[in-house]
Amino acid sequence: MTPSATTALSDADFATAIEDRYYEDYLPGAVYVYGSITMTEDDILRFAGEFDPQHIHTDPRFAEHGPFKGLIASGWHTCAVMMRLYADHYISKVASLASPGIDELRWVRPVRPGDSLAIRTTVQQARVSRSKPDRGLVHTGIEVLNQRGETVVTMSAMNLLLRRRPAGE
Amino acid sequence: MTPSATTALSDADFATAIEDRYYEDYLPGAVYVYGSITMTEDDILRFAGEFDPQHIHTDPRFAEHGPFKGLIASGWHTCAVMMRLYADHYISKVASLASPGIDELRWVRPVRPGDSLAIRTTVQQARVSRSKPDRGLVHTGIEVLNQRGETVVTMSAMNLLLRRRPAGE
Repeated sequence: MTPSATTALSDADFATAIEDRYYEDYLPGAVYVYGSITMTEDDILRFAGEFDPQHIHTDPRFAEHGPFKGLIASGWHTCAVMMRLYADHYISKVASLASPGIDELRWVRPVRPGDSLAIRTTVQQARVSRSKPDRGLVHTGIEVLNQRGETVVTMSAMNLLLRRRPAGE
Repeated sequence: MTPSATTALSDADFATAIEDRYYEDYLPGAVYVYGSITMTEDDILRFAGEFDPQHIHTDPRFAEHGPFKGLIASGWHTCAVMMRLYADHYISKVASLASPGIDELRWVRPVRPGDSLAIRTTVQQARVSRSKPDRGLVHTGIEVLNQRGETVVTMSAMNLLLRRRPAGE
């Protein structure tokens, strides 16, 4: 179940609200933590039935004897839940133009029914576009963490964001 | 809507059925095409409402004036539809152990309501595990194509697969 309200999990957060956040607000080195979303067995079965019908994601009995000794979430489901937290808390609601893509996506630990997921985002680098100087490209390291603080997924995301316009421009 | 039946779209396909396919069957250089799945506006709104509530994915009116001049699917939704075709046709139902991850995921063109998606898979490399010689790691280049044959997403996927046991072993 994706809840309607998730939250920042530490005191560290952007100085600007997500409705007034621009390229310049993504400062390399900044680290923020947001969560959490709990994945139920029903959630896992529903997502996998539609998008990833492999036995380890759709059949709890089969999965008991499979490589993970139990049902695990589709890796793409975990990415989708990551995106929910990223959209709720991290990526600007006014300045985001597009994401060119993701590098080094790694599923490092299984996600099981009942696991509660949070994300830790680290601004890795930011640079203004040479061809379109009204925007910049931000690279963000994302770790998805479970309720024990273990890393379950890592990746590096790119986002194109508008720059803040100075007053009078 | 994810259909219950998708199909191989060219004469080229594995020599072995997906229920009897092992590491050895993934031959570097082999190219296969499978599809298709049509994404409706309802599908796009439903996925985005749960996992990626950004206006360009959830609000058709807003999206008309957004950077893509119309509603587009969440990039993670496109990945999930890719996975459905990959699980239906490409990745063994008996030998797949896990996916360590994905490299160079790129969202190169938007996916809009009514687009029909197919995948083109290319076996890039395959090598037997040194530490666990009962399995091997396969790298697959994946392109997601729309109904005009345009590439909308590219990535490189890793899959761990059991080797076929010789008779009598």
